[in-house]
Amino acid sequence: MTASRISRVVVTPVAFTDPPLLNVVGVHQPFALRAIIQIHTDSGTVGLGETYADEAHLARLGTVADVLAGLDVFDLNGLRRRVVDVLEDGGGAKVAGMLALKNPADVVLSPFEVALLDIQGKELGRPVSDLLGGAVRDEVPFSAYLFYKWAGHPGSDADAWGEALDPDAIVAQATRMVDAYGFTAIKLKGGVFAPQQEVEAVKALSAAFPDHKLRIDPNGAWTVGTSIQVAKELEGLIEYLEDPTPGIDGMAQVARQTDIPLATNMCVIAFDHLKPAVGADAVQVVLSDHHYWGGLQRSRLLGGICDTFGMGLSMHSNSHLGISLAAMTHLAAATPNLTYACDTHYPWKTEDLIKPGVLDFAGGSVQVPNAPGLGVELDEDALGRLHEQYLSCGIRGRDDTAYLRTFQPDFTPNTARW
Amino acid sequence: MTASRISRVVVTPVAFTDPPLLNVVGVHQPFALRAIIQIHTDSGTVGLGETYADEAHLARLGTVADVLAGLDVFDLNGLRRRVVDVLEDGGGAKVAGMLALKNPADVVLSPFEVALLDIQGKELGRPVSDLLGGAVRDEVPFSAYLFYKWAGHPGSDADAWGEALDPDAIVAQATRMVDAYGFTAIKLKGGVFAPQQEVEAVKALSAAFPDHKLRIDPNGAWTVGTSIQVAKELEGLIEYLEDPTPGIDGMAQVARQTDIPLATNMCVIAFDHLKPAVGADAVQVVLSDHHYWGGLQRSRLLGGICDTFGMGLSMHSNSHLGISLAAMTHLAAATPNLTYACDTHYPWKTEDLIKPGVLDFAGGSVQVPNAPGLGVELDEDALGRLHEQYLSCGIRGRDDTAYLRTFQPDFTPNTARW
Repeated sequence: MTASRISRVVVTPVAFTDPPLLNVVGVHQPFALRAIIQIHTDSGTVGLGETYADEAHLARLGTVADVLAGLDVFDLNGLRRRVVDVLEDGGGAKVAGMLALKNPADVVLSPFEVALLDIQGKELGRPVSDLLGGAVRDEVPFSAYLFYKWAGHPGSDADAWGEALDPDAIVAQATRMVDAYGFTAIKLKGGVFAPQQEVEAVKALSAAFPDHKLRIDPNGAWTVGTSIQVAKELEGLIEYLEDPTPGIDGMAQVARQTDIPLATNMCVIAFDHLKPAVGADAVQVVLSDHHYWGGLQRSRLLGGICDTFGMGLSMHSNSHLGISLAAMTHLAAATPNLTYACDTHYPWKTEDLIKPGVLDFAGGSVQVPNAPGLGVELDEDALGRLHEQYLSCGIRGRDDTAYLRTFQPDFTPNTARW
Repeated sequence: MTASRISRVVVTPVAFTDPPLLNVVGVHQPFALRAIIQIHTDSGTVGLGETYADEAHLARLGTVADVLAGLDVFDLNGLRRRVVDVLEDGGGAKVAGMLALKNPADVVLSPFEVALLDIQGKELGRPVSDLLGGAVRDEVPFSAYLFYKWAGHPGSDADAWGEALDPDAIVAQATRMVDAYGFTAIKLKGGVFAPQQEVEAVKALSAAFPDHKLRIDPNGAWTVGTSIQVAKELEGLIEYLEDPTPGIDGMAQVARQTDIPLATNMCVIAFDHLKPAVGADAVQVVLSDHHYWGGLQRSRLLGGICDTFGMGLSMHSNSHLGISLAAMTHLAAATPNLTYACDTHYPWKTEDLIKPGVLDFAGGSVQVPNAPGLGVELDEDALGRLHEQYLSCGIRGRDDTAYLRTFQPDFTPNTARW
């Protein structure tokens, strides 16, 4: 094998329609943004990656893309060094509306690393899971990700899912999603209504789905005291309680008062959060996400750290397309201690840019692609359409708060509100 | 590429002559034992691994070798599962005389994992360092590993290095080793004489080699009080103090009283030691060793953990041959935060079983082999000779204490003696 090197990198922002899903900071805008990375090699292989597309993030992706020519496709350490070096002007990064990262290196690194693994796999004739130590499971279970939501975006018709603003509607949403996808775990995105209504929704889900694993994630909408109170009410009903309150200190205070494992994708989102979190015994489950943990290899490191320090491991999701779903599936398949069903927003999207035929859900799980690389093929026409949509939609960053304020000018995020 | 699978595994114990090097538990026997692993694939590739060869360890290696046929050479997770499953009768493992492991899985896994990486590299036409994320350095610095020693084994002639039982002789040994190999770091194996003599040896080394990085490793020969006292005397002279006293608690007590980083390959030798060590802030440098940390990929996990939890990373060595040196070199080359010169016993051996021409020392460093796989080739004749030597030497396990007692029947190990 010749040492294949990067010849060219293309970063394409895309937009896809997104329903009005409610959360602690506001409501999803009509379009979700993603950036698609295509890395070309001198041997003619193309690798794919997918990440956020907020403007500042796009600028950083472009900066990195400009310095990658000539890099050996196996040199992941060299990739990281180039990213760190070129971004060394510093400054934090805010992506996906809620994630504030002190150091942007890992979130910028991620899609390029995934694309290089895609290339490695294609050149070796091996699925990416093989490059991560080998799949320990043939299929990866995901969870039904329920949202309170409006019927449709204001000024538009109702979408196919319709309104969901109370427990009954949440149970109906769950029923429809479980029927369609076969999910065996259910997550409710909370932080939208007062805790008691969301507790009632979980209890209604538990009654309707007594054999399903349940979770609720209010994104830090509650005080420590409320979190402890809610935890008491939900004991025995949920497998973990996700980010009831903000911050490592707050989570640690809650953890001392409940036997329900606390999970997070808010207070532990970078490697430098792990030592204080472990020291405070603040979280019992880390929700990994290769998009901000620095790609698939560094997510495996996170998995090894969780295993070593006695924390569970699950997987977080933002709105995403098929390239990300493929990467998530390979990673989860090759991570022995990722024993929870992974989160995904996949059922909420109606557009994609990969060719169909892989990544279908059955029994709530996605079969691990066994074609070389990520195992997905880009639909160039769809990429063009979604890029045109990006250009025309006018959205240049995720801001659920600003969007909700266009309808409720006095809205403030519900963080630690109750 | 076809999915290459394991067809056959051969485990060959070998013995090579070893000088009478003194340490806390006794003296090296006339022969050091290693087991050489050859994994054959159905596509005709052979991968190499090297590990300890104590009898109980050899038995476990054989047990694992018997269950590996059919395994895909990329399925490292599957390898680990087979090892764990077949060893599940439990029980600890003692290897290399001083290492007592509660769970033998990682130490048994290691040589097979290295051999699979060797095969992967050979089939891909890539050096093993590429499979570990890519070399971040072209050459790996090692340290001069000094020992108090007898002139020769009792009843035999003096060996080429001669006697070293006082500071002057240690300086002479260092001079010779540094002249021959170019080392820029020097480690003294202590725990043999009363602390004051060993402190004098370090001071003599510091005077003779003012620009070299120095270390001393008494293998836990000292009490907490003595360790603190010695640390005061050596402040400014050594880059780290290795295992002055036994146990995580003892090390933590010493660490609180000195600014010299404490290093260990005794109280943190398995993943389940990391959480208590981090919690107690007991060690500032972990001496990794792929032979008992479960191979190269799991050693990279250890490296990532050290990076995440603010610990330094260096590398430990037992008496070893060229296959191990190649693996150590690839691992160190691909581990960005392995910033200390690595330990090696390599200068003390006079026999090997790899073909010469790679792994030569220059300026204290070994060039990272860039041939496919580990980049070393087995000399089948030498393997046969060293296996014959194993069969005839009569030694079936490392026991430095028993060997020393044949000359000093009242000897007891110096652990925490002073």
